[in-house]
Amino acid sequence: MVKNVDQVDLSQVDTIASGRDVNYKVKYTSGVKMSQGAYDDKGRHISEQPFTWANWHQHINWLNFILVIALPLSSFAAAPFVSFNWKTAAFAVGYYMCTGLGITAGYHRMWAHRAYKAALPVRIILALFGGGAVEGSIRWWASSHRVHHRWTDSNKDPYDARKGFWFSHFGWMLLVPNPKNKGRTDISDLNNDWVVRLQHKYYVYVLVFMAIVLPTLVCGFGWGDWKGGLVYAGIMRYTFVQQVTFCVNSLAHWIGEQPFDDRRTPRDHALTALVTFGEGYHNFHHEFPSDYRNALIWYQYDPTKWLIWTLKQVGLAWDLQTFSQNAIEQGLVQQRQKKLDKWRNNLNWGIPIEQLPVIEFEEFQEQAKTRDLVLISGIVHDVSAFVEHHPGGKALIMSAVGKDGTAVFNGGVYRHSNAGHNLLATMRVSVIRGGMEVEVWKTAQNEKKDQNIVSD
Amino acid sequence: MVKNVDQVDLSQVDTIASGRDVNYKVKYTSGVKMSQGAYDDKGRHISEQPFTWANWHQHINWLNFILVIALPLSSFAAAPFVSFNWKTAAFAVGYYMCTGLGITAGYHRMWAHRAYKAALPVRIILALFGGGAVEGSIRWWASSHRVHHRWTDSNKDPYDARKGFWFSHFGWMLLVPNPKNKGRTDISDLNNDWVVRLQHKYYVYVLVFMAIVLPTLVCGFGWGDWKGGLVYAGIMRYTFVQQVTFCVNSLAHWIGEQPFDDRRTPRDHALTALVTFGEGYHNFHHEFPSDYRNALIWYQYDPTKWLIWTLKQVGLAWDLQTFSQNAIEQGLVQQRQKKLDKWRNNLNWGIPIEQLPVIEFEEFQEQAKTRDLVLISGIVHDVSAFVEHHPGGKALIMSAVGKDGTAVFNGGVYRHSNAGHNLLATMRVSVIRGGMEVEVWKTAQNEKKDQNIVSD
Ligand code: HEM
Ligand code: HEM
Ligand SMILES: [Fe+2]
Ligand SMILES: [Fe+2]
Ligand SMILES: [Fe+2]
Ligand SMILES: [Fe+2]
Repeated sequence: MVKNVDQVDLSQVDTIASGRDVNYKVKYTSGVKMSQGAYDDKGRHISEQPFTWANWHQHINWLNFILVIALPLSSFAAAPFVSFNWKTAAFAVGYYMCTGLGITAGYHRMWAHRAYKAALPVRIILALFGGGAVEGSIRWWASSHRVHHRWTDSNKDPYDARKGFWFSHFGWMLLVPNPKNKGRTDISDLNNDWVVRLQHKYYVYVLVFMAIVLPTLVCGFGWGDWKGGLVYAGIMRYTFVQQVTFCVNSLAHWIGEQPFDDRRTPRDHALTALVTFGEGYHNFHHEFPSDYRNALIWYQYDPTKWLIWTLKQVGLAWDLQTFSQNAIEQGLVQQRQKKLDKWRNNLNWGIPIEQLPVIEFEEFQEQAKTRDLVLISGIVHDVSAFVEHHPGGKALIMSAVGKDGTAVFNGGVYRHSNAGHNLLATMRVSVIRGGMEVEVWKTAQNEKKDQNIVSD
Repeated sequence: MVKNVDQVDLSQVDTIASGRDVNYKVKYTSGVKMSQGAYDDKGRHISEQPFTWANWHQHINWLNFILVIALPLSSFAAAPFVSFNWKTAAFAVGYYMCTGLGITAGYHRMWAHRAYKAALPVRIILALFGGGAVEGSIRWWASSHRVHHRWTDSNKDPYDARKGFWFSHFGWMLLVPNPKNKGRTDISDLNNDWVVRLQHKYYVYVLVFMAIVLPTLVCGFGWGDWKGGLVYAGIMRYTFVQQVTFCVNSLAHWIGEQPFDDRRTPRDHALTALVTFGEGYHNFHHEFPSDYRNALIWYQYDPTKWLIWTLKQVGLAWDLQTFSQNAIEQGLVQQRQKKLDKWRNNLNWGIPIEQLPVIEFEEFQEQAKTRDLVLISGIVHDVSAFVEHHPGGKALIMSAVGKDGTAVFNGGVYRHSNAGHNLLATMRVSVIRGGMEVEVWKTAQNEKKDQNIVSD
């Protein structure tokens, strides 16, 4: 037996007292109130049950399935019966840009991340265009997105990239999620914006009008192409916007470099940027989410950044947030240090000095009669296998056998390079007791430094 | 008054006793015995005197001037009167390769660096071809070159790159050097090779025959082009060989990357490799001089390496020296660490903890009434300027003002990234006395590690 249960809305109001006795309201939300799916008689949620012939239809979020899969496919099916029109094509491309930027500049950078503030007309236009991309209301989209940033790569991450490429692309919205995994996040600022409130309240009308009706009317009244307006500029156009913006959750967590942090999935890739109106430098973005930029360098493709910057020039946007060059370079340095430490630890730097046997100087001289031993900085090295290969010649290296070669090795005859010192370290056999402590200690200090693991 | 003085030959024989009472002979040489130039009545050598109308001709090494400047220029002057011949051109290019490789595979990698051993016929052929490049005898060339490696970038470096591009290219051989700057190096192995001894003794004949006579005879008897053989395959061809091999001392110390050590002038550049038969990875080469390779990666251009490798395959060369992958990567790691440390030290990581004032917890709470202070890991931070820009929202960060936010900042509410920690460090104002020592100490340890300077 399966019963349908309406989940209670997890939204609630917390009041948190600050140190100055000023009350700040935090509005936590789990997004839009909606049917949360079925439970079986063991009390398991549908998302915890295996797919069966009896229950597979309960796993699917049918509304999303229709908007993201069925309607889009139907537009491709209709295409052979709808003739091509240059004007419709040009309008569709232009409207694709507008609705796409509505998502990236509006939904994402302005509302989800507060990366800048914009004048009312800009907010209204972005709310309308973003609505025409058929990706949900600002309130729902931005709160899910904040949850994604706060709980990246965990069960609470709605687009959890660990669950696979297609899950993070759109599987997460096609399947009914487990209500246990709801993450919470503060959306008080969104609730204070009447544009967001209205767009959420009347979202169904915004969607139908902006995604379908408006493009049909434009192409119909404009140049008589009603069918093309509906199929190409309407449905097929919004399909492309959906697919490319979904890439920010899939591609951007799967391909590319991780210059700032390799502990989580976000990655930087020029291809992702090209596809997503500039949202391709996602490893940077997860470190510095409220920066209005995604690409830092001028020649990297980030039209969303260019749009915001242009709005600022004409006075329609302000308070553009940036993290300092210093903070950005700190992140780069730490990640490089981490990679370098990993590399260093995979190399052989010789037996650590504290693990070498300690011998007397007389023993060293005795042993040097049968093996080619050289004493350098208080450490005895067996150079037998190397004398024939010494770049400085056999005679010079043999001249130090059985002696203290510290001075000749370090500049007396030749100031050896890093390579010479590294090679020497791999030939260690023992340490001389007494007299050399300082030398040994100094070398050990250097090596500890060398092999330091910086846990940033 | 100027008097001519013949310098004594600095060559001498040292006997060095090894630890096993075996005598090894070290033959030090300063190269070929030759007139060392003039001294003035103050006892200054010509190289220490300024150029004047009276003495400029004494600054010039006229023999080298003729072989490197005058004859080459005369071949270009003669060119308009010598008709072009395809066969001569093809032979000249082929002979250019042979004599060039005589220098790189023979003079440089085999004799100067003992990077491999070769069968007698190979040694004879390389000695002849190398002689046809008009760059001096093996004995003179290899001993100068060893001095260059041993004393790189010092007054004793014959091609001292610090004295300018053109000095290192050929200025050093066109001017009379200061005998004070003679460096010494062990050439006992060269003196033990009869091919080297003979080639040195009869070098004048080798030069004239291989550089001039042989190409003239080949083109003359071969296809009747006596003049072309002399001018193109002879003089102009050796001019090109000279100029490109001189690039190893100029270009290779001036352009490119320094992946192994940036304390000295040698550099790696693909262009240098292309010009010099593969001697372009010179930063590597100065670290690992006796490695028979110069380019490490298969697609990098190093025909000299390919020749040596081929000789090995057919049994004509053996004992090819290589440094281990481990030793090579150690050098790369150390140089990268050095650059990373330099970068790190240019960034602001916040006021070092030991320089912060120490306050009581009560003082912290008092001060937090007028400024937005947050206590994290025992350190007080002033976040006033940041609350409006906090990516997690104003309400959450304000909830920690006047309190200990260690837990919420480190995962209780959100596990902040490196970026969050770095930014926090720039907001430090004081340390709390008591109770927090361990926390503060741990943070300090981490930072010391962060900012460690590894002096490799
Ligand atoms: C004891 C172990 C030794 C090792 C592992 C060693 C290693 C090396 C290495 C790797 C080089 C190549 C260039 C460089 O690193 O800068 C080199 C060059 C040289 N070494 Fe050593 N060396 C040792 C001992 C000595 C001693 C005792 C002497 C002198 C008494 C000496 C004299 C030289 C000279 C003169 C060169 C320069 C050769 C050239 O670049 O043409 N080495 N050595
Ligand atoms: C005290 C100084 C603070 C600084 C300098 C700071 C800095 C930051 C920074 C740079 C981020 C961006 C992402 C990241 O670094 O991972 C961030 C995100 C966040 N912070 Fe803070 N933070 C502070 C305090 C707090 C406090 C006290 C709380 C909670 C009580 C908090 C909650 C959050 C949350 C939930 C996010 C995630 C927002 C998102 O990614 O959408 N922060 N913070
Ligand atoms: Fe993401
Ligand atoms: Fe984001
Ligand atoms: Fe060099
Ligand atoms: Fe060399």
